[in-house]
Amino acid sequence: MGLFRAIPKLLHKHVVMACTAPGHQHVLRNGGLRFTVVPSRFQENVRKASSSSPYPYTMETAKQKALEVARSMHQKHGKAVEDRDGKPTVQSLPPTAIVELIDGFKGSKALFTACKMKVFDLLGDEGPLSTADVARKIGASEGGTGQLLDVCAGLGLLDKTEGGYSNTPLATLYLLSDGEYSLHSFIMTQEEVSWPFFSYLDFAVREGTVQAQRALGTAGEDHYQECFYKNREKKLQFMRAMHGHTKVAARHVATAFDLSGFTSACDLGGSTGALAYELARQYPGLKVTIFDLPEVIEDAVFFKPHGPEAGQVSFVPGDFFQDTLPEADLYIVSKILHNWPDDKVHQLLSRISRSCKPGGGLLVAEQLLDEDKCRPLPALMMSLNMTVLFQARERSLSEYRSLLQAHGFTDVRAVRTGSTSDAVLATRA
Amino acid sequence: MGLFRAIPKLLHKHVVMACTAPGHQHVLRNGGLRFTVVPSRFQENVRKASSSSPYPYTMETAKQKALEVARSMHQKHGKAVEDRDGKPTVQSLPPTAIVELIDGFKGSKALFTACKMKVFDLLGDEGPLSTADVARKIGASEGGTGQLLDVCAGLGLLDKTEGGYSNTPLATLYLLSDGEYSLHSFIMTQEEVSWPFFSYLDFAVREGTVQAQRALGTAGEDHYQECFYKNREKKLQFMRAMHGHTKVAARHVATAFDLSGFTSACDLGGSTGALAYELARQYPGLKVTIFDLPEVIEDAVFFKPHGPEAGQVSFVPGDFFQDTLPEADLYIVSKILHNWPDDKVHQLLSRISRSCKPGGGLLVAEQLLDEDKCRPLPALMMSLNMTVLFQARERSLSEYRSLLQAHGFTDVRAVRTGSTSDAVLATRA
Repeated sequence: MGLFRAIPKLLHKHVVMACTAPGHQHVLRNGGLRFTVVPSRFQENVRKASSSSPYPYTMETAKQKALEVARSMHQKHGKAVEDRDGKPTVQSLPPTAIVELIDGFKGSKALFTACKMKVFDLLGDEGPLSTADVARKIGASEGGTGQLLDVCAGLGLLDKTEGGYSNTPLATLYLLSDGEYSLHSFIMTQEEVSWPFFSYLDFAVREGTVQAQRALGTAGEDHYQECFYKNREKKLQFMRAMHGHTKVAARHVATAFDLSGFTSACDLGGSTGALAYELARQYPGLKVTIFDLPEVIEDAVFFKPHGPEAGQVSFVPGDFFQDTLPEADLYIVSKILHNWPDDKVHQLLSRISRSCKPGGGLLVAEQLLDEDKCRPLPALMMSLNMTVLFQARERSLSEYRSLLQAHGFTDVRAVRTGSTSDAVLATRA
Repeated sequence: MGLFRAIPKLLHKHVVMACTAPGHQHVLRNGGLRFTVVPSRFQENVRKASSSSPYPYTMETAKQKALEVARSMHQKHGKAVEDRDGKPTVQSLPPTAIVELIDGFKGSKALFTACKMKVFDLLGDEGPLSTADVARKIGASEGGTGQLLDVCAGLGLLDKTEGGYSNTPLATLYLLSDGEYSLHSFIMTQEEVSWPFFSYLDFAVREGTVQAQRALGTAGEDHYQECFYKNREKKLQFMRAMHGHTKVAARHVATAFDLSGFTSACDLGGSTGALAYELARQYPGLKVTIFDLPEVIEDAVFFKPHGPEAGQVSFVPGDFFQDTLPEADLYIVSKILHNWPDDKVHQLLSRISRSCKPGGGLLVAEQLLDEDKCRPLPALMMSLNMTVLFQARERSLSEYRSLLQAHGFTDVRAVRTGSTSDAVLATRA
């Protein structure tokens, strides 16, 4: 805490930071400090033998860096940098943010590749393991494996110690293929579908169309079918993907509003029941019907939990654009509306509105965009994803309010959960 | 500063954060505070008309959120989350970092696409512009353009106001194609070369080889030639790419050590002179010879600056693996060694060592990896890039020390600049 006690004393002084570490700068900026960065010319030497513990070594290095910078700023060819005309320069506005953005795809692809090669599953079962062991067990080159493991460690997914590599808690929770909150299959759909579609983002922007033909190399008449339902394996992977992505936010969504006044709910397109079972857990008096396509429901049994909440959830096969919707006090559309452009959303809301009794509810679970449509970043990226894949998008609360009010819903309110889904609740007038 | 004065008072209490905003959590964690996050169920309402200014609205919302969470934590189905067996849960370790990593490639590709479509050049010349104007002027669909512009705004590259979109200082400094510190061409090589190679990262890891054939769709016997020297346009783009990437770090590298004791330097593979001219500016007594391939030198004239430093820099054509190196007190290899595996680096260092007089210097400019090879992230990502493209990599200071000492260089020391290149200096024994 010494740092933050010191900041107020520095606020009206000309502060020069002799260290260029972005993390340190970030902490200080968050603490309200403004400063100039003048990198030290002090020469680091990795031999630390002269110090008996890290503390004096660190203090001495810091002191020497500060002294060196203070001296250099008064020299003729010193490094103190004035912004000409007050415009930002490389020194006052370093390219860090641009470099991070450029490198984003490398981090994504390293994560996708490690997931694809089941590196986290292997280390979960047998870690810590050496590079040679991992390479042998995943059937990959030792050089390539070592590089991939180091990158995963740098990204916070693996711990690297003398004993080898092992999963961090983050990897254990989200990257094992059979974890309760696994995002493994979601990541595989990003790798297999989103990556090739994003490879043609320039065409998508230029033409304003989904680039199925270029991305898939097929005629792509029904690319949704092609990507997610081509065979049973693809279908199950897609169901697991949606299951994981829904489940990590399910408790947030289920508890965003007090839904204890409802006794029956119908989750339209509720798939595996990731949200339905959580609602059942949170509201023991609630019966939830999942209404989804027959080919989805036939495999939903694999996701049935062991607890008593399983008894509150039932499945009805059907197409919510065509078939009669089951009766319920509360209708739910979770990660459904963002699949469709406005005309299809109007069709669906009109059907829900006709089934919903006055006083009934409609819960929409989606990632909410801010009103300026530029934030928050995760919702914005999901929105871009939906456009690139389906010419659909995420929406702001105002947009949902307009859509819902057009179909007789009032009292539209939202809770931003900070997770992979926010929640909007409306009441049928 | 009120926040940081308050933190010490909270350190020994059970703190519950009723807000899930990752930014807020980050600031507080950086301030040393540890806390549980219990998202509020308080219902946001975008109508702020009842408050005359933002402050009371914000305070009231915060108060209501806190009260609601405090109440809910004592309810039967409340949301306070205990970690079972002390293991991390979705609540204590949210998937934010994984989601950011998954989405990294979308941000990269949006940046690449906006650069490719010259959006920043257009807005630099004519901004602010509306979506419709940008779409018309870049010849793209209005829907796709609007989405791309919003994503660029979310990424901090554009400002979005009622008057339209305009470049942020970050975009002005680095993303205009003709800016002094432009990374535009560097980004284009990432888009055109690195992206397709990374698309086959799984094959690269498995086989331990460069995936030129899969990435380029050609026999790819000499993919370096194919990617960067296929025609004059490609060559110039590559030279501009290297120029920008070198120039943003050039002052840091040139001033990392006091080089005023040297009177002549030879920059091997110095290309456009981005580093050479900066050295000339910093050390008016220094003459710098750039030694590079004839096809590079013939176009280096386009990068010649107007200042007096131009007179200190001269060009000699040649291949540093084959031809006699020009004489100099100080040899420089900037972004050269990371192009090659160790055997080729040994060849080159051996040639430099034979040319360098005792007491002469060798300056290596590269991004230094930490000794654990897992950090810092920008160096790690560049290392992965070099592996995927050339079976080469970045190195740690210890590795450079070993390589340099093997060829008669001593007193190997490094300065981490925090920019796109660090600096290592050694003396010929």
